[in-house]
Amino acid sequence: MEAITVGQYELVYNAFSFAIAVMGAATVFFFLGRSQVAPAYRTALTITGLVTLIAAYHYLRIFNSWEAAFTVTGNQITVTGIKFNDAYRYVDWLLTVPLLLIELILVMHLPRRETVAKATKLGFLAALMVVLGYPGEMSSDGGTRWFWWGLAMIPFVIIVYDLFIGLQGSISSQPAAARGLISSARWVTILSWCFYPVVFVFPMIGMTGGTANTAVQVGYTVADIVAKAGFGVLIFLIAARKSEVDIASDLHVQVRA
Amino acid sequence: MEAITVGQYELVYNAFSFAIAVMGAATVFFFLGRSQVAPAYRTALTITGLVTLIAAYHYLRIFNSWEAAFTVTGNQITVTGIKFNDAYRYVDWLLTVPLLLIELILVMHLPRRETVAKATKLGFLAALMVVLGYPGEMSSDGGTRWFWWGLAMIPFVIIVYDLFIGLQGSISSQPAAARGLISSARWVTILSWCFYPVVFVFPMIGMTGGTANTAVQVGYTVADIVAKAGFGVLIFLIAARKSEVDIASDLHVQVRA
Repeated sequence: MEAITVGQYELVYNAFSFAIAVMGAATVFFFLGRSQVAPAYRTALTITGLVTLIAAYHYLRIFNSWEAAFTVTGNQITVTGIKFNDAYRYVDWLLTVPLLLIELILVMHLPRRETVAKATKLGFLAALMVVLGYPGEMSSDGGTRWFWWGLAMIPFVIIVYDLFIGLQGSISSQPAAARGLISSARWVTILSWCFYPVVFVFPMIGMTGGTANTAVQVGYTVADIVAKAGFGVLIFLIAARKSEVDIASDLHVQVRA
Repeated sequence: MEAITVGQYELVYNAFSFAIAVMGAATVFFFLGRSQVAPAYRTALTITGLVTLIAAYHYLRIFNSWEAAFTVTGNQITVTGIKFNDAYRYVDWLLTVPLLLIELILVMHLPRRETVAKATKLGFLAALMVVLGYPGEMSSDGGTRWFWWGLAMIPFVIIVYDLFIGLQGSISSQPAAARGLISSARWVTILSWCFYPVVFVFPMIGMTGGTANTAVQVGYTVADIVAKAGFGVLIFLIAARKSEVDIASDLHVQVRA
């Protein structure tokens, strides 16, 4: 573990604690929200809550690992020799990134065949992307980092392309009241996702030691909060809006009959 | 950490434990209360419970940090060198203060466009207020403290003005049975909020060392309990009262038809 300042240590420490609070609160929000949407959208909300629950668990582990790696006494910081475990993030992403894509597909409530096909394809690509990023993250050699970064970018670009172009057609079949929100969800996915490859690159573009370490930890934490909890709120709003539309059209059918 | 007496240490210690009990119990009350109100008010109660849940988490952290900072043996108290982490409060407020304003807006059940506009504006101002207060709180220099206090007071005054004047119009559109409660909720917000800038000022008006430290910790704890749990009970009462009114007017419509 490289030398960092007390201020950097505390910033990362508080960012991790903030993430635990956000992910935990978001999980409760999504699970309670299930009862407020139509049955067709409840699985989407279950998955949304699972993503933040898994993240809350991992941020608790990451927080404890960070605390164990350093000793702060007064204004002095020393490394304890216990290694900070960066692998927790990748274990988390291996689970949560495919689930994130699946929650977006589920809330669109496409025909069953299309749901299965899209969820399988995007879920597989997302897992592949995380697996390819890991060897790069574990390396301190610039060349090795760029090599794995480049490989992980291939599934990344395919997913982003698929969300933007491939889902375009499906969006036009969504109820007008929810179309704007679904479009926002696509944008939030893409913008928050673009954070990750940028944060990955920090140590390769001149940042070193404690600064690089702090920027990477805080950067990934912010990206995770937006991509999981922020994105999840959009999923909840889409599910709630579509539930209203469904109920209204059911009533309309009944009145006409 | 400055010298404090055993009595001061114990007062703060017990205040923190009291806060954990209140926030935890309030969370359960609000979540169980969701099923007793009409669906339109459930999200307001969910958020009310999340605020106290997030606060319970942070008071647990604050309690542990306080305990780690001192060693008490008999009537002797010594500092351990482990720093008391004051940042937990600001991390908590960054999350809970915008949510507190959103729960008040949600329980008013305004038209969707107005809800989104007010929640965005007040939520943003609340977060800005907390961020501007933090550098002052971390400083022991009087001038620096006053400077950030002054900056944080700008969004503070705008929020208070908005609640008092801006919401006045919306209140008159509320059912008569709930109007008094909503007006109380506005007053509780403003009075409990005024506690915070006053507590912040304690170390700048002659209080020093352990006395200032104790007054700040106990002051913020009391303010948090009133602003989160006490205010939440009012939100629950408003939601319950408005649910009764809604059911009564629905029955009236059915009888007339």
